[in-house]
Amino acid sequence: MGLDPLLDYMPQPMKDDLSVEEALFIFCRDLMDATADIIPAVKPQSAYFERYGLAGLHALDRIIKYAKEAGFYVILDAKRGDIGPTAESYAEAAFGQYSSGADCLTVNPYLGSDGIIPFIKAAVKYDKTIFVLARTSNPSSAEFQEKSCGDILLYEAVGEKIAQWGSETEGKFGYNRVGAVAGATYPEQLQKLRLKLPNTFLLVPGYGSQGGRASDIKAAFDANGCGVIVNNSRGIMCAYKTMGKAADDYIDCARKAAIMMRDDLNGIK
Amino acid sequence: MGLDPLLDYMPQPMKDDLSVEEALFIFCRDLMDATADIIPAVKPQSAYFERYGLAGLHALDRIIKYAKEAGFYVILDAKRGDIGPTAESYAEAAFGQYSSGADCLTVNPYLGSDGIIPFIKAAVKYDKTIFVLARTSNPSSAEFQEKSCGDILLYEAVGEKIAQWGSETEGKFGYNRVGAVAGATYPEQLQKLRLKLPNTFLLVPGYGSQGGRASDIKAAFDANGCGVIVNNSRGIMCAYKTMGKAADDYIDCARKAAIMMRDDLNGIK
Repeated sequence: MGLDPLLDYMPQPMKDDLSVEEALFIFCRDLMDATADIIPAVKPQSAYFERYGLAGLHALDRIIKYAKEAGFYVILDAKRGDIGPTAESYAEAAFGQYSSGADCLTVNPYLGSDGIIPFIKAAVKYDKTIFVLARTSNPSSAEFQEKSCGDILLYEAVGEKIAQWGSETEGKFGYNRVGAVAGATYPEQLQKLRLKLPNTFLLVPGYGSQGGRASDIKAAFDANGCGVIVNNSRGIMCAYKTMGKAADDYIDCARKAAIMMRDDLNGIK
Repeated sequence: MGLDPLLDYMPQPMKDDLSVEEALFIFCRDLMDATADIIPAVKPQSAYFERYGLAGLHALDRIIKYAKEAGFYVILDAKRGDIGPTAESYAEAAFGQYSSGADCLTVNPYLGSDGIIPFIKAAVKYDKTIFVLARTSNPSSAEFQEKSCGDILLYEAVGEKIAQWGSETEGKFGYNRVGAVAGATYPEQLQKLRLKLPNTFLLVPGYGSQGGRASDIKAAFDANGCGVIVNNSRGIMCAYKTMGKAADDYIDCARKAAIMMRDDLNGIK
């Protein structure tokens, strides 16, 4: 479940009666409480907390800690990307002494290995994982990601580097510590990446609101039918909208949407 | 002046006697006070504040506000990159209601126009500027940025998009609102980008500690000898190290280094 909380999504009394920090925290806490027996992982999107300034960042810290205590695997979606000591600092921010303790961070490959290796070193040190953007789910992702680089496309070249970076690490259950992000909205490209990355965990956004269907994701699973985290943000958070309910019903609607998604994904195999 | 404050850079008493937030704030405030009559712009690097958790983020907020009051142009170097409403949220985080009020934000182009247009819209709305990564200063930047895409390289394709994105905006002094980041460490590529981007402000990192010299930057200036912000982080912050002094002398050494840098750059023309 992606946690992308906007105040706009919340019932009026939450916005009126609570501080920004408290509203963000309560909304996400309720969503987690309603789905903890159905959903294994949450993906807080840093942008939606950063937009509310320090109040938002305090809420994010509490939400990550709450999620960990509730038994969720926590993917901090922050798409950080920088080099050398700066990348080290972003890795420390996610995983280090002063961090909220997320299990996993998304990172951007545009700066090359100098922008990835420091994150991998931190992931090994702190027993964490990173997911590198390969083929994102948005319409214009092709602009650069599908540029022809010799006989392959840029996102495939990134996929090959992800395989190389990951091959030097060892994670859990036979997967390495360097996963890839590949959108459900481009099933053919998802399949190509899976072929290049047989032992890599894939983080697949774009299911639900962005148009990705369970059948589109089939190719993402590995030979054992595993190795994928499918993300759904607004489809669960704002399920009340598609169910024709008011925002007050966000908890029940989120639970129903999570069950429907689970069953939909289980139907793939 | 890049503000990348690590506790390691500071005199022992600052680390011993002050809270993390206070140490970060005082260190950066002193550097700004020592150089305000020499240096026009500061570039706080978000990573170095995020690594210290909420204490660091409180310090960053205070430093941006202090810098604005002291008359600096403030470039928030956060290299954000995401799509649609998430990119909007990052833009709000930098420029909106709850932001600290930076003038400018660095962004990553890997996700294509969906990842850039929301930042441009926010820049227009709030009278701000963005700088898009084109050719970064690090050694492995060529891994993807110099992939051949037809008859041009990826960073040149990004440069062409930057020209297109920028052409639809109007900023100040004849420049548009979409600048480009191009490292001093690759002068030939810097020149190619300047030719593609005649009316674009360039943010040039890599001067000093990373090896870029004034002569390397010459090609970055536009036809009027303007249009460039040259960044120097450790070369000023940690000037005491290259000057053989103790960390206690960071203020005087930073001022001397800033004057030397100014004179070095003025010597280009």
